[in-house]
Amino acid sequence: MQLFIGNQNYSSWSLRAWLIFSQYNLDVEVVKLKLFTEDFYQTLEGITPTAKVPILVDDGITVWDSFAILEYVNERYLQGNAWPSDVLDRAKARAISAEMHSGFFELRNELPMNIRARRNVDLGDGALKDIARIDAIWAEQAELYPDGWLFGEWSIADAMYAPVALRFLTYGIELSEGAKAYQKKVLASDSLQQWLKDASFEKDIVEEDEAGEAV
Amino acid sequence: MQLFIGNQNYSSWSLRAWLIFSQYNLDVEVVKLKLFTEDFYQTLEGITPTAKVPILVDDGITVWDSFAILEYVNERYLQGNAWPSDVLDRAKARAISAEMHSGFFELRNELPMNIRARRNVDLGDGALKDIARIDAIWAEQAELYPDGWLFGEWSIADAMYAPVALRFLTYGIELSEGAKAYQKKVLASDSLQQWLKDASFEKDIVEEDEAGEAV
Ligand SMILES: N[C@@H](CCC(=O)N[C@@H](CS)C(=O)NCC(=O)O)C(=O)O
Ligand SMILES: N[C@@H](CCC(=O)N[C@@H](CS)C(=O)NCC(=O)O)C(=O)O
Repeated sequence: MQLFIGNQNYSSWSLRAWLIFSQYNLDVEVVKLKLFTEDFYQTLEGITPTAKVPILVDDGITVWDSFAILEYVNERYLQGNAWPSDVLDRAKARAISAEMHSGFFELRNELPMNIRARRNVDLGDGALKDIARIDAIWAEQAELYPDGWLFGEWSIADAMYAPVALRFLTYGIELSEGAKAYQKKVLASDSLQQWLKDASFEKDIVEEDEAGEAV
Repeated sequence: MQLFIGNQNYSSWSLRAWLIFSQYNLDVEVVKLKLFTEDFYQTLEGITPTAKVPILVDDGITVWDSFAILEYVNERYLQGNAWPSDVLDRAKARAISAEMHSGFFELRNELPMNIRARRNVDLGDGALKDIARIDAIWAEQAELYPDGWLFGEWSIADAMYAPVALRFLTYGIELSEGAKAYQKKVLASDSLQQWLKDASFEKDIVEEDEAGEAV
């Protein structure tokens, strides 16, 4: 199995897909490509019709898109265990994951993932609304599962929201008590610590993802 | 079970979710709300945290987002049959469905769903690229499954792409042979014919979704 990802400092969708392999100790060869370079597009040509990472190549099967990769791995290698087992929780986990997958545009634009940076940004109304919504989701789940992942055990929903924990750190976003506790849990996890370590060796600057003023 | 949808003339995400109930003859009460009206937001307040349709309310469980609803219904009521049974096809169906769920922004902006209209639009490069990509997906699957749905039997992938068949009709978009055959199949299906009939009784104009010049 090969997982193609982008710069770990910047690529939030890559992180989402990578996390399921890390959380479940699945054997995978990670191939890292530098975003927006000629090599990136050349390597992806012929592998994927979309020229975006992440991409999974497994046994003659190519899966593009982080969400599709997470579902594929969950079904094929994890007997469905990466969604909550309770039917209500599973429905809610799917809904908030789909919400992330298809939304939060202002957050993504104004607060691009940029692990090594610490920045100030002037936030527009849309980004503030996105932040408030994510804070509400995290706080609500923290009340239901104190000290836990969003649904107690780690699930795909945690993969979908992990990059946001990093964005909030980069841009110094204040969170409510419950949301802050969840952010802390994400950042302290072994998987995320591993990703941060790998990212820390990178030197490339991706201008498209540099936002805000240095603090 | 209650499914909340928007104006059938305009609401592409509502159509996607509705189709699985129609294709499988599942019993559901459809509640239609007028997009962007006070009544719309008032009704949704308290039901959903996102104030968007579609929303499914089933047995104390609220599912928002079309993709999450499709997965929920598939798993709970269809024993997973709404994804292709072949593992390669299932992976590909998930990937192209996720691609639609998270992308094709220029297509969505420049060619909003507007069933009753026939319009000319000047297309930007992004929209043209989106159209070419969808044409390629449909043509490739038409070669693999002549006269069939995208993966032979009807699947969630067909729900995700159905509104595009309508957009291409509204804006007179030319397609390749295979893609055109698929578009025809979608438009002629009983489910879509039912939706078109329901939509034809609507009189409301949603300015946000009116684009192009009358032909
Ligand atoms: N919906 C896709 C989004 C993937 C995506 O946008 N990836 C970015 C990096 S995080 C990328 O490859 N960008 C390169 C490009 O757009 O040319 C997913 O969930 O995987
Ligand atoms: N990602 C959502 C998108 C839902 C969506 O954007 N729905 C539109 C109608 S098609 C809506 O409710 N708009 C009302 C609003 O944005 O206020 C899904 O897949 O269900």
